[in-house]
Amino acid sequence: MSQRGLFISFEGIDGSGKSTQARLLAERLEAEGREVVLTREPGGSPGAEEIRALVLQGDPDRWSAETEILLFTAARRDHLERTIRPALAAGKVVICDRFADSTRMYQGLSRGDLRGVVDALHDLMIGLEPDVTVLIDMDPAKGLDRALSRQGIEERFEDFGEDLQREMRAGFLALSQEYPDRFVVIDGGRDIDAVAADVAQALSAKTGGIT
Amino acid sequence: MSQRGLFISFEGIDGSGKSTQARLLAERLEAEGREVVLTREPGGSPGAEEIRALVLQGDPDRWSAETEILLFTAARRDHLERTIRPALAAGKVVICDRFADSTRMYQGLSRGDLRGVVDALHDLMIGLEPDVTVLIDMDPAKGLDRALSRQGIEERFEDFGEDLQREMRAGFLALSQEYPDRFVVIDGGRDIDAVAADVAQALSAKTGGIT
Ligand SMILES: Nc1ncnc2c1ncn2[C@@H]1O[C@H](COP(=O)(O)OP(=O)(O)O)[C@@H](O)[C@H]1O
Ligand SMILES: Nc1ncnc2c1ncn2[C@@H]1O[C@H](COP(=O)(O)OP(=O)(O)O)[C@@H](O)[C@H]1O
Ligand SMILES: [Mg+2]
Ligand SMILES: [Mg+2]
Repeated sequence: MSQRGLFISFEGIDGSGKSTQARLLAERLEAEGREVVLTREPGGSPGAEEIRALVLQGDPDRWSAETEILLFTAARRDHLERTIRPALAAGKVVICDRFADSTRMYQGLSRGDLRGVVDALHDLMIGLEPDVTVLIDMDPAKGLDRALSRQGIEERFEDFGEDLQREMRAGFLALSQEYPDRFVVIDGGRDIDAVAADVAQALSAKTGGIT
Repeated sequence: MSQRGLFISFEGIDGSGKSTQARLLAERLEAEGREVVLTREPGGSPGAEEIRALVLQGDPDRWSAETEILLFTAARRDHLERTIRPALAAGKVVICDRFADSTRMYQGLSRGDLRGVVDALHDLMIGLEPDVTVLIDMDPAKGLDRALSRQGIEERFEDFGEDLQREMRAGFLALSQEYPDRFVVIDGGRDIDAVAADVAQALSAKTGGIT
């Protein structure tokens, strides 16, 4: 079994099954004898969690979009240095629940004019993309269904921002076309095991059998 | 009297008289009828103060140099948006006790290889230099003398890092040569009023009499 480090991110709209599939993949690879670090953004290291808390607490207008991007880039830099790079250097598989594509997608939705700034900051201070990004694609109505059933609430989809989820879905699909080499798009609208099998097969194809 | 905004920064080693001269200049310009905002870095806006506290509290090794630069750039961006730019847009004089040159100087001393990153971040996210930067230049021994007398302590200069102050002085002088258009170098080793008179004269010459 190869001991080359491998960096895999999961992206997708809320309720699409990122956290579920990231955990299942981690369990499968560990069962196969790989060392796995399962992490997430925003956060993923103690410093990044503190920066995240600073960004999210208080008045939502407290930070401009630009300042917020700088703070999230600082958090990602810390996560990269303290968690991701050391694990990759030790030959581990890093599985990250959301990474830079989430920033790109959200930025595209709220302040599309800042995409250039986001990319320039990424190139300057992060400079790492996942080897494979698994996009769990799904009809937003289905994701909201899951989220609602999880909370045991019954409400109209629209109240939970189905339109916004549709824009996010489109944003992620656009990113998958922008970076076709590292993206795999998985149909998340099936049962958990079927999705996990698709993820396994797609990863194996993308990495030439390493996973 | 011109109502064009004017951005003036003060730089120099510890105890050189930056805060004293910034205050005296603010008082003089206000007496002449100008609206003045006296501010300082790091900090200068509520958000910037919070970021500063996050950087400075806790273990000093908690943040890498790169993460720290991102956090300080986030703080400067907030200071710029909330304090400096609105004041300049309203035609005020902004007097800032330390600005980006302090970052450049400190970075040059501790991680000179990051100067390119510092400059690239500045160009991308700040993009503003002072109209005039007043460098209060002084023999470090004299600055430490003042600092010690202020605290009523008697100790050997070396214990207070005279060597480090010498490197900082050299760093600031190098920056004044790198940016000759906006820097004025003032001899800070004279009495307060003599230095203030020199600052007034140099500013008047540099701004064509606006101040
Ligand atoms: N393929 C699936 N079919 C049905 N329910 C699922 C599926 N994948 C995940 N879930 C459930 O949907 C909810 C959201 O899944 P989660 O993995 O937390 O999504 P995300 O991390 O993308 O928000 C959870 O309650 C989870 O158990
Ligand atoms: N030209 C001067 N001569 C003598 N003492 C001075 C002079 N300028 C400032 N001081 C005193 O030296 C100390 C440091 O001055 P300060 O303005 O706080 O320096 P800085 O802000 O550069 O650290 C203060 O106690 C101040 O009153
Ligand atoms: Mg999740
Ligand atoms: Mg001072």
